[in-house]
Amino acid sequence: MNNPPTYKHFLISEPFDFVRHVQINRPGKLNSFHQPMWIELRQIFEQLSLDPNVRTILLSGTGERAFTTGLDVQAAAQSSVLGQSETIDGARRALFIRRHIAEFQDCISTLEKCEKPVICVMHGFTYGLGMDICTCADIRICSADVKFAVKEVDIGLAADIGTLTRLPKVVGNFGWVKDVSLTARTFGADEAYRVGFVSHVRETKAQCIEMALELAVLLASKSPVAVQGTKELLNHARDHSVADSLRYTGLWNSAALQTSDVERALLSGMNKTRPTFEKL
Amino acid sequence: MNNPPTYKHFLISEPFDFVRHVQINRPGKLNSFHQPMWIELRQIFEQLSLDPNVRTILLSGTGERAFTTGLDVQAAAQSSVLGQSETIDGARRALFIRRHIAEFQDCISTLEKCEKPVICVMHGFTYGLGMDICTCADIRICSADVKFAVKEVDIGLAADIGTLTRLPKVVGNFGWVKDVSLTARTFGADEAYRVGFVSHVRETKAQCIEMALELAVLLASKSPVAVQGTKELLNHARDHSVADSLRYTGLWNSAALQTSDVERALLSGMNKTRPTFEKL
Amino acid sequence: MNNPPTYKHFLISEPFDFVRHVQINRPGKLNSFHQPMWIELRQIFEQLSLDPNVRTILLSGTGERAFTTGLDVQAAAQSSVLGQSETIDGARRALFIRRHIAEFQDCISTLEKCEKPVICVMHGFTYGLGMDICTCADIRICSADVKFAVKEVDIGLAADIGTLTRLPKVVGNFGWVKDVSLTARTFGADEAYRVGFVSHVRETKAQCIEMALELAVLLASKSPVAVQGTKELLNHARDHSVADSLRYTGLWNSAALQTSDVERALLSGMNKTRPTFEKL
Amino acid sequence: MNNPPTYKHFLISEPFDFVRHVQINRPGKLNSFHQPMWIELRQIFEQLSLDPNVRTILLSGTGERAFTTGLDVQAAAQSSVLGQSETIDGARRALFIRRHIAEFQDCISTLEKCEKPVICVMHGFTYGLGMDICTCADIRICSADVKFAVKEVDIGLAADIGTLTRLPKVVGNFGWVKDVSLTARTFGADEAYRVGFVSHVRETKAQCIEMALELAVLLASKSPVAVQGTKELLNHARDHSVADSLRYTGLWNSAALQTSDVERALLSGMNKTRPTFEKL
Amino acid sequence: MNNPPTYKHFLISEPFDFVRHVQINRPGKLNSFHQPMWIELRQIFEQLSLDPNVRTILLSGTGERAFTTGLDVQAAAQSSVLGQSETIDGARRALFIRRHIAEFQDCISTLEKCEKPVICVMHGFTYGLGMDICTCADIRICSADVKFAVKEVDIGLAADIGTLTRLPKVVGNFGWVKDVSLTARTFGADEAYRVGFVSHVRETKAQCIEMALELAVLLASKSPVAVQGTKELLNHARDHSVADSLRYTGLWNSAALQTSDVERALLSGMNKTRPTFEKL
Amino acid sequence: MNNPPTYKHFLISEPFDFVRHVQINRPGKLNSFHQPMWIELRQIFEQLSLDPNVRTILLSGTGERAFTTGLDVQAAAQSSVLGQSETIDGARRALFIRRHIAEFQDCISTLEKCEKPVICVMHGFTYGLGMDICTCADIRICSADVKFAVKEVDIGLAADIGTLTRLPKVVGNFGWVKDVSLTARTFGADEAYRVGFVSHVRETKAQCIEMALELAVLLASKSPVAVQGTKELLNHARDHSVADSLRYTGLWNSAALQTSDVERALLSGMNKTRPTFEKL
Repeated sequence: MNNPPTYKHFLISEPFDFVRHVQINRPGKLNSFHQPMWIELRQIFEQLSLDPNVRTILLSGTGERAFTTGLDVQAAAQSSVLGQSETIDGARRALFIRRHIAEFQDCISTLEKCEKPVICVMHGFTYGLGMDICTCADIRICSADVKFAVKEVDIGLAADIGTLTRLPKVVGNFGWVKDVSLTARTFGADEAYRVGFVSHVRETKAQCIEMALELAVLLASKSPVAVQGTKELLNHARDHSVADSLRYTGLWNSAALQTSDVERALLSGMNKTRPTFEKL
Repeated sequence: MNNPPTYKHFLISEPFDFVRHVQINRPGKLNSFHQPMWIELRQIFEQLSLDPNVRTILLSGTGERAFTTGLDVQAAAQSSVLGQSETIDGARRALFIRRHIAEFQDCISTLEKCEKPVICVMHGFTYGLGMDICTCADIRICSADVKFAVKEVDIGLAADIGTLTRLPKVVGNFGWVKDVSLTARTFGADEAYRVGFVSHVRETKAQCIEMALELAVLLASKSPVAVQGTKELLNHARDHSVADSLRYTGLWNSAALQTSDVERALLSGMNKTRPTFEKL
Repeated sequence: MNNPPTYKHFLISEPFDFVRHVQINRPGKLNSFHQPMWIELRQIFEQLSLDPNVRTILLSGTGERAFTTGLDVQAAAQSSVLGQSETIDGARRALFIRRHIAEFQDCISTLEKCEKPVICVMHGFTYGLGMDICTCADIRICSADVKFAVKEVDIGLAADIGTLTRLPKVVGNFGWVKDVSLTARTFGADEAYRVGFVSHVRETKAQCIEMALELAVLLASKSPVAVQGTKELLNHARDHSVADSLRYTGLWNSAALQTSDVERALLSGMNKTRPTFEKL
Repeated sequence: MNNPPTYKHFLISEPFDFVRHVQINRPGKLNSFHQPMWIELRQIFEQLSLDPNVRTILLSGTGERAFTTGLDVQAAAQSSVLGQSETIDGARRALFIRRHIAEFQDCISTLEKCEKPVICVMHGFTYGLGMDICTCADIRICSADVKFAVKEVDIGLAADIGTLTRLPKVVGNFGWVKDVSLTARTFGADEAYRVGFVSHVRETKAQCIEMALELAVLLASKSPVAVQGTKELLNHARDHSVADSLRYTGLWNSAALQTSDVERALLSGMNKTRPTFEKL
Repeated sequence: MNNPPTYKHFLISEPFDFVRHVQINRPGKLNSFHQPMWIELRQIFEQLSLDPNVRTILLSGTGERAFTTGLDVQAAAQSSVLGQSETIDGARRALFIRRHIAEFQDCISTLEKCEKPVICVMHGFTYGLGMDICTCADIRICSADVKFAVKEVDIGLAADIGTLTRLPKVVGNFGWVKDVSLTARTFGADEAYRVGFVSHVRETKAQCIEMALELAVLLASKSPVAVQGTKELLNHARDHSVADSLRYTGLWNSAALQTSDVERALLSGMNKTRPTFEKL
Repeated sequence: MNNPPTYKHFLISEPFDFVRHVQINRPGKLNSFHQPMWIELRQIFEQLSLDPNVRTILLSGTGERAFTTGLDVQAAAQSSVLGQSETIDGARRALFIRRHIAEFQDCISTLEKCEKPVICVMHGFTYGLGMDICTCADIRICSADVKFAVKEVDIGLAADIGTLTRLPKVVGNFGWVKDVSLTARTFGADEAYRVGFVSHVRETKAQCIEMALELAVLLASKSPVAVQGTKELLNHARDHSVADSLRYTGLWNSAALQTSDVERALLSGMNKTRPTFEKL
């Protein structure tokens, strides 16, 4: 990784070959977000998505107290959207809000659209926008001290950056989703694991990071054609009928099977060696 | 609540401000349903949906033995649909059945379409139509003595008032849904909780009602703009792709954010006071 | 069952009236599949789907070591698809692969399209294509020794015969699906039960078969109009919005309720006798 | 037709057996609509949809000058929706508007949902809501003097009662739809015929009515099972994929073919007699 | 074409390289269809779809009087579907009808699913099933004497083999589709051309065949990768949103562009020579 | 328009208030496109979409000979996509192609996503990418000398930048779309008008521009809330069912009706004055 771009609000490192670790880096404010941060988040994930030297991405938050407490409400209150001049009418105000939300959603959706799998580690406060963000990841791991909440109802609004859209598709339990989304109540690691919101729980943030890195290294060691295809096909399946997905899958593999990865993987399997794969 | 409308088959009370408690009231027949009851149910939920003095609704059944045993089969056997004159042909008979089912479905769907969240408490027998009804609710709580069954297969038909449609989307476990729907077997509170069909289990019906009322009061204390938007957006997400839902969400909030509730909620949060919100 | 057709790679028996037991029968190769086997599988399920003497189907694998280890990779490597002459261009090669996958998918999808419920018992190795197959079944039961894996990533490809399409809709836990699909890791009976991939776990394969047969007999004793309608409507619901499914359900029952099964079932219920139903 | 219900704003007659003629009857105001009128329109079409003595419906406007000029803007300005108290916030105002539009849309959509075909004759001014209404009909016939316009842009709003939704699906020419919808320009009978918005043009309103009645009588003479099924299946096809529609069609006819109409129609065809069909 | 398979009810010839001419060959019965014919039609189009020596298919009817009058009603009346024993109930009868329609639809849909473009020439009577068939084709050409009719309503049923599903998507004029489908009236070449049901009209059947063959030869001279991709992508677009289609298109061409056809076509364009393309 | 941004490949002018004229400016190469041009096109339309001083956009091509001949094939042949090193495998090559097409499609789709209506004037050669581009516009006007062609088949590929996706939804005539897309034949203004591809034909390019500017001025004089809402709702309707679109429309207008434009438009209508509207 020669001269990786540097970012203002995020730390990016390369702990292992093909693995990137992205950290939200505003610990003094509990990693809360203002607009320049989500725009930077988009730049980062768009860049990593295309970088052939990246195969897996780990996302976490710096500091001990929070993955992120979500939107920096103070900053938002001063921004243009909610502070629109009173003199424009409701339709015009709606236009600005709609554009603002659309851009905000697009930034967060880059985690989902990223061609490589994203593993997210949550610890401490993971509120509001923190839920929107981690719900976009592919695999979620949390520490025992995590405090999740779909907090938006408590500030007078319905969550609009993705939680209400994706959470019902991520966990199977629609009643539970309504419960936590309507009450804005806090829930912890055990409950998150029981309903399937997280795949793994570890005692401390450090143990989570350790586990996530092991997983990231494992995924990075596999055929990138296979791994990236699997992410894409699962995301497609979520939003389409079985018939449509099977058709799309067949089309996908009509090109993807024309790879040397299959032969390399098969040979390694027979020879009990570790395969290497061309960059993708 | 001045002069609330009274209904023949349901009790309606206002245990707390902004909270309505609707009880199925045919305990002598285990709260089983005949046609006038589901038509009345529709009237009730259409009225409550529009009433600005209502923010949360609790639905339960009177008596100790059953939420409802479902369709009153004896009454149904005497009704016109299955008792159609033998002289009309199969196509014409189908028309009457189709119209009958459509109206029946519409009545039960009013729980889902109701703009306010519906909390449902189930106890004792909760069979057939009982499943159709509670599956439409937003949050389900049951007592330890509950006996659930998708009973229709045992009377020779596929459930057609919503269970087969909604149950797979409410719990994530499609294999389990097929198991209980094909076998018509009874299952209890523990199993219902494990698969995510209910969000909470309490020992007795009284404890369930108590918990449900606490939850109802909590929801009624929050911004109605936020709560009702959250219900609507979650229901929309269930039936649409992520892209479609994000677009719909942005549009929804372009108007919903033009509310004083956000400011009131933020101020209360800072001042540690309890916010009050305008009627909706 | 006079003169049932015989098949080369599968054993078919009639352990009880209206019940068929289909066994994958290549134990020497751990029941791994080559192309003639999936074509035969299609023939079998298309025939059973139409046979009025069949009401439930049990699918399992012979031998003690595996339900199936999936694709016989050695055979596949020699087949025409991956071994296409190097002289054709990438577009032409893609055409052959696409046709090949489409036919392969069609063969496996016959389990899902079969009008009668399919109960699948898995034991030992259940890898790759084994996942594709059992994910198509209606009810899954496994033994304690089962070893599941979505193994495809480890041979350099994204699973394309249905697992990635159906698994997210069968279990509710999308994060878990991504975890096992991306890592290709093995998981066992407990985990499969916890996430809802199997409905029941029994200690041994024999106990699984016993339980599955009891379940099969139970389903076969019920109204075939009701049972087959329930399967169809649940599968339809999985791929459609609630509004579309309710409409389809009403249409389905406009014909299905014109059955003598309802009266027979009701009479038997009142008389505490076991109903018999006409063939379907 | 003993004691047909009478309505305040519409004339209803029975010019021929099984045919009803509904006339918008507010000629002094160019048949412009206020809220009680669209609520009455819904009542009428819901009643006619279920009445077995009705097989075809003709809709037209009284007077010589207009089918309808659309919304009575003066009445609308005084109504509650746009005249909401200034003291409520934008989110609450949006709720009232949304409910109002939804009810308005539902009323007009009853023409489309009506089980029997609706033939609409347009003459003179056919503006705004007039477009919403006639676009819902199954067959459109207009006189040479008709003046159509999607007029809403000229009063500062996007048409929201159905024109923008249905017009692109009724005519094939999306560019033309955008042209007339964005410019709000008037277009006449020739242009309407050329782009396929109307099926037939006649010189005068009287000739249109005459032609429409002939068509209505023709449709009423045919099998109601066939005619009503055809309307339903075409409307379903408009909103679904080919695969979904074929499946729905097969299900529809699985009941509809169990009719005596097929035999009656075939016998009449052979005997060159006019068939009669049972009521539906 | 060495030893092409021969068929009982269809003539197949190879008038030019890569072009097949399929003729419905039952002129004594006006090319009307009974069940063995549509099963044979499926076999033919499934075979031609896969045959690398075929690039375009022309479908027409033998004799001077009819493309086809549609279903052979006499044969159908004697078949099992409508002649089901009176002793089975309505639900069971519905099952047989549903299966019958599904198989019938599948046979006709093979024209649409055929990977190569199908040009259909219609002359004389083209009724009922004739409409279902030609609506599946890619390009329709008719002679001046053609007599089209969606005839099913006149025999008491809604068309169920595809016309009601595909016709609204083939022509843009939904009102016209309802008109001809509800009235079952005959329409001719001019009207068919005006509404866009046919692309070209020629005076005689012979002239139509001549034109169709020229077109077939033209298509056969072009890159089969390009031609077959174009058919597939247009059919996909018909049933999906713009966003879904663009995604599918990009995936399609990610393999299809890896063809030598692009280079060959470009070189031929520059050199003003006629390109040849590898088989597909 | 103070200091409008300038672009390298496009001319942008402000012929009238609120109207922008964008011209493809590479006349020496018949306005053919290379990659920097479509990237610039995206920048332009994204900027104009947000600029409150812009209400309508006119797109045309400089020079007398061509709107655009489409892709600059020579430039494309030298670019990285088709010239990928031969050493990477088919799966990896597919990835680069897929990314390239996706970015290309996104650039062209900005015309459709632009919040303001786009009027496109086509003259002379309008081939390949020219079709992709103008099909994205809202209103199409062409001169008598235009030569349209969906040319891609003739260079060995299926059109992938939008024509195959959007053209069937823009004109109603699917058979015609297949005809011109499969044959790649040229068609002129009359045919384009007859099938509804263009809304207006004028003799010369200058007359087209004149007409387009009049139309642009007309649209710019109307309520921007109404005009932009109409564009959005029509585009939404194209891709959704009637039920979904009505719901979206009601939500849209719940905010949009909170505009002063309605009152201004109504007052101007009564006073016969020309309304002015606030910026949007």
